[in-house]
Amino acid sequence: MFQTRLTDAFDLDHPIVSAPMAFAAGGKLASAVTQAGGLGLIGGGYGDTEWIEEQFRQAGNAKVGAGLITWKLAEQPQVLDKVLACNPAAMFLSFGDPSPFVDAIAEAGVPLICQVQTLRDAQHAARAGAKVIVAQGAEAGGHGERRATFTLVPEVADWLRAHAPDTLLLAAGGVADGRGLAAALMLGADGVLVGSRFWATEEAHVSDAMSDAAIAATGDQTIRSSVMDKARFLNWPTRYTARVLRNAFTERWHNDLDGLMAQAEAQSAQWIDGWNAGDPERANTFVGEAAGLIHDRPTAHEIIKNMVADAETLAGSAASWIKSPRD
Amino acid sequence: MFQTRLTDAFDLDHPIVSAPMAFAAGGKLASAVTQAGGLGLIGGGYGDTEWIEEQFRQAGNAKVGAGLITWKLAEQPQVLDKVLACNPAAMFLSFGDPSPFVDAIAEAGVPLICQVQTLRDAQHAARAGAKVIVAQGAEAGGHGERRATFTLVPEVADWLRAHAPDTLLLAAGGVADGRGLAAALMLGADGVLVGSRFWATEEAHVSDAMSDAAIAATGDQTIRSSVMDKARFLNWPTRYTARVLRNAFTERWHNDLDGLMAQAEAQSAQWIDGWNAGDPERANTFVGEAAGLIHDRPTAHEIIKNMVADAETLAGSAASWIKSPRD
Repeated sequence: MFQTRLTDAFDLDHPIVSAPMAFAAGGKLASAVTQAGGLGLIGGGYGDTEWIEEQFRQAGNAKVGAGLITWKLAEQPQVLDKVLACNPAAMFLSFGDPSPFVDAIAEAGVPLICQVQTLRDAQHAARAGAKVIVAQGAEAGGHGERRATFTLVPEVADWLRAHAPDTLLLAAGGVADGRGLAAALMLGADGVLVGSRFWATEEAHVSDAMSDAAIAATGDQTIRSSVMDKARFLNWPTRYTARVLRNAFTERWHNDLDGLMAQAEAQSAQWIDGWNAGDPERANTFVGEAAGLIHDRPTAHEIIKNMVADAETLAGSAASWIKSPRD
Repeated sequence: MFQTRLTDAFDLDHPIVSAPMAFAAGGKLASAVTQAGGLGLIGGGYGDTEWIEEQFRQAGNAKVGAGLITWKLAEQPQVLDKVLACNPAAMFLSFGDPSPFVDAIAEAGVPLICQVQTLRDAQHAARAGAKVIVAQGAEAGGHGERRATFTLVPEVADWLRAHAPDTLLLAAGGVADGRGLAAALMLGADGVLVGSRFWATEEAHVSDAMSDAAIAATGDQTIRSSVMDKARFLNWPTRYTARVLRNAFTERWHNDLDGLMAQAEAQSAQWIDGWNAGDPERANTFVGEAAGLIHDRPTAHEIIKNMVADAETLAGSAASWIKSPRD
């Protein structure tokens, strides 16, 4: 077990939070993460409240939180009350301005976790009242932006220490094993948010074919693009792209958005058919560069157990790497 | 002092190598890094042999190496012999296929360090005979590619352990302080390559104005682009872009390459005038996202001293973060 400000604040055994991956992270995954000593989050995504309520039911008595896409929530703010009514252990907001939702979340007594992609947005979220900031690097799977985990985490850590010292910090993007957990703690994080590694688990709502695609891929085989969003007619703000495994769809359209839109209806139908079939060739597998560190489909429990054990081994031996000049 | 396979192999006090930043890393910086217990590299860049020879003279008796841009070297392979004649402590090649140069470097008895930006290129360089692989993430300043330090380093580490266990590994991109050094070691690196942090030093060949610009910037204020290369009429392979501080030049042209080329002569002259004047407004400051972690312009010696001291503090305390379930 690692004890950090995060484990203290949320009464966790391990400073590991599972990313609220839209569609993939349901109640089964979230509750498995919580039961393994981390904090599991349901991927509320675009705000399908019936689906979200069903996932909370599936999580049973396990204390799990939920995530929502902030710009989408702003279009349908009534979603928030329905999610808060599920008694989440935390509300996680990403991709947009969290300010309009801070008061309602605070009144419900629910801790607010804000994921950000830049220092500037970290400052904004901390000032708005987030209890936890997640600094997400571009290596992450799914939606994100351009900055990297390795620099964003310590830069946000410095700013928080000076301006909002009670606000906690998680590292997101590229954390898939004990090395990543240990490195994130070194960079100044209080814990980690893990996405892709939990995508390829027994509990995730992911087809075997997409899971297998993530397992087979190296980290070189991902791309940040917006063509998947265009194909779903989702109005994502242009600053956000999504990292996915490259396939014929991204190869064909990534540099030809105009061409894609010229045959949008047909291409969209094909992509969505592929998505519904869980087909990594026609639709895209939403994992990050950490795909290159993922070689199996274990349970969430096994992932957390191994991640913590490996990080403990590293942390326990780090002092022995130091030699005095006289050695 | 950290003892790693790198410090053993190169007889260093610290596992820190300074990046051979073209133009900025001369003999003065390289020798200062070596004298502080790291390994200093002269930025041979595009292969101006008179300049390189002068930098080796300035380095005096300090054991320093040199770096060259590989695709440029391929256009003028005779440069290699002249650099090897300077008796470098290491030859560093990046941005292209190192294979054609491996034999000459080996015959000179000089260790070959190959910087790579993908797992695939790491495999190629290791098979070609590199003694050290530098896994460079996209957060790095100057030229680079798309993968991130946080995932590329452990993925390359895994491959090397299985296929080329005697090949050493450095992390590059985003390493600017003790946190970065400690995190890189956790991710599986034998040491770090540090660029931007040494850009803002007393010894670097960088104007005060550009150094000040790097110090003032946050990590949000950089961009990867090719407009600076276009403005210099450099034929960089399209896969490589350079990370610089955003300024009026990148804002104007980054999304309008055709427009830039339509007035290439005039724009180039302005950019190069700005570069020669060390003006961060007209030309670009070649630093990475680590700019957000850089707040002063110390000596290389001070940087190394503080980086090592801070990393030792982290490494020395990491074991105390582990709690047994009974605590």
